Amino acid sequence: MRWSTSRVEAFSDGVIAIAITLLVLEIGVDPDALAEPWRALADQWPSYLAYVTSFLTVGSVWLAHHSLFSRLREVDATLMRLNIALLMLVSFLPFPTQLVADALTESEAAERAAVVVYGAVALSIELVLATMARHVASQPGLAGDGEEVRAPGARKRGFLSVVVYPLAIVLGLLAFPDLAAFAYLAVAIRAVVSAQGEGRIALARIPTD
Amino acid sequence: MRWSTSRVEAFSDGVIAIAITLLVLEIGVDPDALAEPWRALADQWPSYLAYVTSFLTVGSVWLAHHSLFSRLREVDATLMRLNIALLMLVSFLPFPTQLVADALTESEAAERAAVVVYGAVALSIELVLATMARHVASQPGLAGDGEEVRAPGARKRGFLSVVVYPLAIVLGLLAFPDLAAFAYLAVAIRAVVSAQGEGRIALARIPTD
Amino acid sequence: MRWSTSRVEAFSDGVIAIAITLLVLEIGVDPDALAEPWRALADQWPSYLAYVTSFLTVGSVWLAHHSLFSRLREVDATLMRLNIALLMLVSFLPFPTQLVADALTESEAAERAAVVVYGAVALSIELVLATMARHVASQPGLAGDGEEVRAPGARKRGFLSVVVYPLAIVLGLLAFPDLAAFAYLAVAIRAVVSAQGEGRIALARIPTD
Amino acid sequence: MRWSTSRVEAFSDGVIAIAITLLVLEIGVDPDALAEPWRALADQWPSYLAYVTSFLTVGSVWLAHHSLFSRLREVDATLMRLNIALLMLVSFLPFPTQLVADALTESEAAERAAVVVYGAVALSIELVLATMARHVASQPGLAGDGEEVRAPGARKRGFLSVVVYPLAIVLGLLAFPDLAAFAYLAVAIRAVVSAQGEGRIALARIPTD
Repeated sequence: MRWSTSRVEAFSDGVIAIAITLLVLEIGVDPDALAEPWRALADQWPSYLAYVTSFLTVGSVWLAHHSLFSRLREVDATLMRLNIALLMLVSFLPFPTQLVADALTESEAAERAAVVVYGAVALSIELVLATMARHVASQPGLAGDGEEVRAPGARKRGFLSVVVYPLAIVLGLLAFPDLAAFAYLAVAIRAVVSAQGEGRIALARIPTD
Repeated sequence: MRWSTSRVEAFSDGVIAIAITLLVLEIGVDPDALAEPWRALADQWPSYLAYVTSFLTVGSVWLAHHSLFSRLREVDATLMRLNIALLMLVSFLPFPTQLVADALTESEAAERAAVVVYGAVALSIELVLATMARHVASQPGLAGDGEEVRAPGARKRGFLSVVVYPLAIVLGLLAFPDLAAFAYLAVAIRAVVSAQGEGRIALARIPTD
Repeated sequence: MRWSTSRVEAFSDGVIAIAITLLVLEIGVDPDALAEPWRALADQWPSYLAYVTSFLTVGSVWLAHHSLFSRLREVDATLMRLNIALLMLVSFLPFPTQLVADALTESEAAERAAVVVYGAVALSIELVLATMARHVASQPGLAGDGEEVRAPGARKRGFLSVVVYPLAIVLGLLAFPDLAAFAYLAVAIRAVVSAQGEGRIALARIPTD
Repeated sequence: MRWSTSRVEAFSDGVIAIAITLLVLEIGVDPDALAEPWRALADQWPSYLAYVTSFLTVGSVWLAHHSLFSRLREVDATLMRLNIALLMLVSFLPFPTQLVADALTESEAAERAAVVVYGAVALSIELVLATMARHVASQPGLAGDGEEVRAPGARKRGFLSVVVYPLAIVLGLLAFPDLAAFAYLAVAIRAVVSAQGEGRIALARIPTD
């Protein structure tokens, strides 16, 4: 019960690319508010913040996914199921993104709920990614010959997120939901900046004739 | 009148990946309901149930599609038309998903109609998948050399679904629509868990230099 | 100024796959109408008709596009621009699809306008496809060695559509808009059924080790 | 910390293809306006203008992106981050597109704000593209052996856009927002028409057996 990595990667890339692009649908200015256009645009700041945060979060998931799969020769049943769970969570992210964008201009109770839900989904994504990396490390047969599957960046990334997300959730729940929203942005920026490259460089450029 | 499997697979992967990712658009909390955020989020449970059910249903269709096409050398005109019918049904699934999510908090009449429509679409998907598998088995020329096209998992999957979906439809129509909704979830989970791998492992990892 | 066919095909496949999957977003039952669920579902028949028609229309464009590009070695600047025009029209089709679905239960004036706009977009797609096929036939350097670029199916398809679409537009404008809507469905079914395969079968299945 | 170009290209193609196809979602006629269908359709002219402008703008970004990446052997960390910034801006474009479409029938103050925001996003896209081209030119190791990375078309394109977009922004802000909207269309048409082909023609057509 094995799958080639190329088809699984192509399907995962498709789902991640769509989820990241659908994020823009949460942004919109009510045409009636265009009487004062600059103010209407400025009032949308929670949407811009939520868009950038989720775009970078999903972007960093793609980088981590890509880094992990570039080390693999094939995909087993466990990894396939974990991958489907990962895609289900990533595809779900536009919902908490919309929630945060709506809630940041509502009551503080709404803000708290929104950042807690957002953090819970982001944390779940990290936990599934970490479980995938651990499973790959425990199954040497999945990796290509002579491939190191240590993926140190992945571990550091996982460690930081697993610490920062729960802290931000607690922070958002108890006291400062706005701060939690910015903490999610900081984690996403850091995850993109510290992303590892591929295990191997597949020189896929087809030679010219 | 033949097509290469690679282009058909790529197009099918694209359509399935988009259909699975659009499912999230049915979930949303009315900003006005955010005055009581936790309650508003809890009231969305039919949306979460419908999202998970449809995500796993479409995910299992991708697994079955992938398993079938990995056994093929080329695609003939009949299979191409069946594939277009399959994609048309899969792309349609976000509509009954939204219907179930809306209906589960409406009257019981609405619930019944919704689960019957959902079941009818899911059953149609299974029947097209089963017809595709039977057509491939009857045309040895389509499969790769020395390839077994028995695909036992596909048969078991088809058998179970074709029994469970009609039962759930009748159950939903006559008595317990909520139960039918959970039966669809159970079928989808089982289809993902019992999915077969590829006929052949295409080692698509390009060698390093 | 040349492009490889593979990247242009991949991008075109992506755009066509997304356009075909977005069609489902025009279908929806107002939750308030779910008090009489079966009637609300039946009232949506124009949406189902528009969905199936546009899905098959876009599907047949993909088949024709695929058939044409499978005969090519490379893409020149003219073909690239025609391809962008084709994708712009295909991506636009969800709008007249929605229009027809909305108009079929409105006044007859609305129906007429909707089927004329739909027909004009579908006809434009056919004309761009026919221009692409003619350009390829006039530039032997674009085709692979020893490749016949006659593509007789494409010519027949183009001929039929270019006759039927204007007739349906006139019919819809003057007298029977419902009939025009069904004529578009008939053209789409016929285009899918009579689609040609690839010029060459690219045996892309990667050998097992 | 290197990535193969093929995976980055595939992901970028996916995001760009989705962003370009989502543009159609901003077009729509209110069903209530269908009592006077031709007038309702004509009143949508700002939506059609915004659709064509953004489609060609994103299309020209794809052409430039493709031209740049076809010259590369691998992607380094800086280029990967610039690419994520580019995709974030391209995915964002449906929002200012909707804004322009809504504003062109509102007050002149709304028009001004809309064309300024649109121009700022389009200008940012050009600046990121130009930075990517400059980075590639400064890192000879990224290009394939014996590959010229001068990309003269890219430079001309960048130069023109960087001049025209600021002029149109100032024009829109001070005096003629409608004129600025048409200037964006003119820039997009010119960018598509003057697009360069690939550095190398990758003959990806797989040989027949």
